[in-house]
Amino acid sequence: MSNNTDTVPESYPMNSGDGSNSYTKNSYSRAAANVVKAKIDDVIPEKLDSTFRLADLGCSVGPNTFITMQNIIDVVQQKYQSQGLASHMPEFQVFFNDHASNDFNTLFASLPPRRSYFATGVPGSFHDQLLPESSLHFVHSSYALQWLSKLPEELLNKNSAAWNKGRVHCASAPDEVAQVYTDQFAKDITTFLDCRPKELVVGGLMVLIMPRIPNGIHCSSAPIGMIFDFLGLCLMDMAKERLISEAQVDTFNLPVYVASPKEMTQLVETNGCFNIERMEITQPGARVDSLSGKALTKHLRAGMEGIISKHFGTKIIDELFDRFSKKQQESFDLLESKYNEGTQLFMVLKHI
Amino acid sequence: MSNNTDTVPESYPMNSGDGSNSYTKNSYSRAAANVVKAKIDDVIPEKLDSTFRLADLGCSVGPNTFITMQNIIDVVQQKYQSQGLASHMPEFQVFFNDHASNDFNTLFASLPPRRSYFATGVPGSFHDQLLPESSLHFVHSSYALQWLSKLPEELLNKNSAAWNKGRVHCASAPDEVAQVYTDQFAKDITTFLDCRPKELVVGGLMVLIMPRIPNGIHCSSAPIGMIFDFLGLCLMDMAKERLISEAQVDTFNLPVYVASPKEMTQLVETNGCFNIERMEITQPGARVDSLSGKALTKHLRAGMEGIISKHFGTKIIDELFDRFSKKQQESFDLLESKYNEGTQLFMVLKHI
Repeated sequence: MSNNTDTVPESYPMNSGDGSNSYTKNSYSRAAANVVKAKIDDVIPEKLDSTFRLADLGCSVGPNTFITMQNIIDVVQQKYQSQGLASHMPEFQVFFNDHASNDFNTLFASLPPRRSYFATGVPGSFHDQLLPESSLHFVHSSYALQWLSKLPEELLNKNSAAWNKGRVHCASAPDEVAQVYTDQFAKDITTFLDCRPKELVVGGLMVLIMPRIPNGIHCSSAPIGMIFDFLGLCLMDMAKERLISEAQVDTFNLPVYVASPKEMTQLVETNGCFNIERMEITQPGARVDSLSGKALTKHLRAGMEGIISKHFGTKIIDELFDRFSKKQQESFDLLESKYNEGTQLFMVLKHI
Repeated sequence: MSNNTDTVPESYPMNSGDGSNSYTKNSYSRAAANVVKAKIDDVIPEKLDSTFRLADLGCSVGPNTFITMQNIIDVVQQKYQSQGLASHMPEFQVFFNDHASNDFNTLFASLPPRRSYFATGVPGSFHDQLLPESSLHFVHSSYALQWLSKLPEELLNKNSAAWNKGRVHCASAPDEVAQVYTDQFAKDITTFLDCRPKELVVGGLMVLIMPRIPNGIHCSSAPIGMIFDFLGLCLMDMAKERLISEAQVDTFNLPVYVASPKEMTQLVETNGCFNIERMEITQPGARVDSLSGKALTKHLRAGMEGIISKHFGTKIIDELFDRFSKKQQESFDLLESKYNEGTQLFMVLKHI
């Protein structure tokens, strides 16, 4: 229930539609869907009920969310069948959640017509409780938790040590900048984890898939940090050429934070309502050699074009991503070796 | 679950937005909301549960649906309080349902920020089961059931006795035309009533509000029939003046049927899953003298502009409703006296 209108979290709509820069075509979420299929087989909750309710938090507009939800339902159905419980097969109800500004019209129009579940949309931030008590058996959230609910104000404060002048992220920034990012992320994950036990039945599962940086590595040395640095450098180059102003770069920061497995573990343990059933480093499924081509640029553009356009206008977008494409190409060998370590964190939590 | 893609019912979006011809401003649904508030006080289901789930079937884009749902919740909360059960107050979850083509983005964007319920959207036809078994305690549907899920094919068949040449409705049509309308309505209400007992708990209530014609009166003598006749006559006048073609009028029919209380009673009794707890004829709340002005025309336009434009194009709309306004004015005295008999059917059904 959204009773607090003072702190409505920011939303960052992805590129919609089916164009070549659309989120649908380029997102790693589809690969994540396949990871779920492979991993959740043995971790379905034991609780039997007449309706099995599952939610995808931060579902965007599909079709990835449809694939993932159907995968999970398939696994549950197979489990019932293999245990001779086919006659007790529950009905399935899927709650598709995203911000109220998400394009639910597109989501609903593209629902698979022959689906084996009742479909419902839940508008709102997953930093609030979204559904009634004990109403969910399974929660899924893929590539959503890295988005900060808001940007720390210090980043724009010239008098703060965390003023992020000339950069768009904390990757290569001073420790003070990194710290305000880290604090905001911790706050967000804490509210996220606080809300879910209200909705999930005891024994219910939560699958979280998100980008990660390796433990003990500075963000600037991780692929995602390098990518954000490239983006910042391209913008600063453009500012030097007066295509945009330096002040515009100074006042722009990416509301994204990539955590290490250790950070996530600590936040889950502090919350205390979940057992970590499984925790793995995986690849998002895109072949590494696709980095060398346009895939990485297209992926970044699909996710970031919206917020970059909002700040800088749409005119600079093609130029910016052309520059980005060249810059990441120069460091391809380094990026490749780091990607091979795995950039995706896959967690299965059980509500205890 | 929408497993049958062959018979997707038609949807007829209302005029959206806040313009003077919008559904929001002109619909009688808002008046219906007040009727609910006044009537449901003593007919709340006895069943206690941790979550009280209610659905508005055919909710459109708001704000009427928000007012109605909040009214119902207020009544339930007052009942808990008056019975000393405040400490057992359930959480509330509202399912807003309409066709997948409904503008859910607008609905979600205009949700009251300080609401006392969890909001969810359910895309799909209420001629299908929309929600899992026994998942609802209260169903509401206002000014939705008069829309036919499809137009009988015979209306367009030149070789059929039910070919509806030169008219847009069954009001003043031959019996054969009226019969195919009646049959389609009966089929639609039957599937509607068949689906609801799957969703509603035993003891759960269903409030239906719809336009009605009096028992034993021919549709053409009822206000709603007169209004549809006026619309047909205006279109035929325009065809004679070559502003549109006669063939266009011949191939256009309003997918609306207005039933008598007796017809509804028979359909509910045939279904057999509901007790009729209450059945009343009410006024939709608009003052009768507003008929003399522009209110009736605006109301009709808000509901019908979409389907009329789709068939005839948007250019004729202003002209058509100007003519309609004059024509209904000529018969105002008759229309007024008939309106005073009440044009709205209010039913409370209990799932037995």
